[in-house]
Amino acid sequence: MISTAPTDPMISLAGRLADASGAVIRKYFRTQVDIHPKADNSPVTIADREAESAIREILSVEVPEHGVLGEEHGQNRIDAEYVWVLDPIDGTKSFISGAPLFGTLIALLHRNKPVLGIIDQPISGERWLGLAGQDTTLNGVPVRTRASFPLTEATLTTTSPDMFSGQDMAAFVRVRDQVRMTRYGLDCYGYGLLALGFVDLVVEASLQPYDYCALVPIVEGAGGVITDWQGGRLDLRSDGRLLAAGNARLHAAALEILNG
Amino acid sequence: MISTAPTDPMISLAGRLADASGAVIRKYFRTQVDIHPKADNSPVTIADREAESAIREILSVEVPEHGVLGEEHGQNRIDAEYVWVLDPIDGTKSFISGAPLFGTLIALLHRNKPVLGIIDQPISGERWLGLAGQDTTLNGVPVRTRASFPLTEATLTTTSPDMFSGQDMAAFVRVRDQVRMTRYGLDCYGYGLLALGFVDLVVEASLQPYDYCALVPIVEGAGGVITDWQGGRLDLRSDGRLLAAGNARLHAAALEILNG
Repeated sequence: MISTAPTDPMISLAGRLADASGAVIRKYFRTQVDIHPKADNSPVTIADREAESAIREILSVEVPEHGVLGEEHGQNRIDAEYVWVLDPIDGTKSFISGAPLFGTLIALLHRNKPVLGIIDQPISGERWLGLAGQDTTLNGVPVRTRASFPLTEATLTTTSPDMFSGQDMAAFVRVRDQVRMTRYGLDCYGYGLLALGFVDLVVEASLQPYDYCALVPIVEGAGGVITDWQGGRLDLRSDGRLLAAGNARLHAAALEILNG
Repeated sequence: MISTAPTDPMISLAGRLADASGAVIRKYFRTQVDIHPKADNSPVTIADREAESAIREILSVEVPEHGVLGEEHGQNRIDAEYVWVLDPIDGTKSFISGAPLFGTLIALLHRNKPVLGIIDQPISGERWLGLAGQDTTLNGVPVRTRASFPLTEATLTTTSPDMFSGQDMAAFVRVRDQVRMTRYGLDCYGYGLLALGFVDLVVEASLQPYDYCALVPIVEGAGGVITDWQGGRLDLRSDGRLLAAGNARLHAAALEILNG
């Protein structure tokens, strides 16, 4: 519980940001958009860029003093007290393939701590909202992770086995070999399903702050635990390795396997 | 073009089968169902079993002379002139995880040749229908694969890298290393996206007839090519290796790489 929870106007603003990006994304979904490779070889489209621009335009008018860090259009004032961290389309490969399992990620950080997170799926109309110290909701309805234990009964998701290299791959495989079931290809949607109690573990690596900041209040507010692979809290300076679990016992068990 | 295309009453019957299974599946989606491992270690739930029972009940009343082969409840009269091949939930892992990317697969074979195929996604309300010699439709609207070429611009999907072993894994990796983008986790939905022109290639192995028979008329009727890894046509006796491509050039190029 923190004393700097987002105010109602900030929560309402976050909702309008998701509305604006969703309108852009629906316009381009299942159309043949050009695909441009970025420096890290991940793809980007006009939909990613326009959706982030739509969000940033609103922010620049309504909260010009806040900082912004976005996947597509860089950073401004990220030493501000409040910083918005944006991924207009988390799961661009899904979006390009016509699969409605990508999401718009919107996080609000207060002094480098994620205090608000949204996962918005603009095709299915699903919106997860996480707020520090409060129950996570899906379309306004409180949700809860599953108390499932042990690890051998867990469902694990990860976006792609191709995101792990070297030691990270070995660590991922150790966890995968213990669980009941592994599902690939979900991007942020996997964390949404964890918050709903249908996925128990997410193990990922090579993530950027805009990929994970929004997930923190969502997972924590649903009763889960989300940290880096050392058990450390996530903020703008984390190393991009993520472990999310539906409950603390499962998290501890997976953490031990990842590290050894 | 064959002279034994399914009749209108058969097409209408196939639609009612999908309606019946969808009603069962929606009832169980995102509920905590028990998960039972099958002999091949894949999971099954009450939703799989009830959905297939609902389909078979209709078939036994309406076309008792037809054969049936289903994933959950075995086979009857599969030497009949017409045989229905059913997978009530293709993508049970997705279903269990709460992700709406599974599908009900319904195929009708005439003398061992797939002449009708349905992919039904009962949560999103998407239904692909393929008929031998006719245009494939999604919810009644004709769809078309993409003419995309070369391979280096293709989007590839496969359900899971864990479905390949030994030589098959090496063959899959050779194709994956050539394409622009690889997406995991789609099950039958990937073939639906190929028919829509947003995926260009699907490479899979370890499949059963109920996993692929319905896909044949859907992919072919949208302008694509779908065969085993030798380029042979698919029927009840195929070996479970599948290659689907949006067009013949891409199919030929991938076939060559798969074979060495």
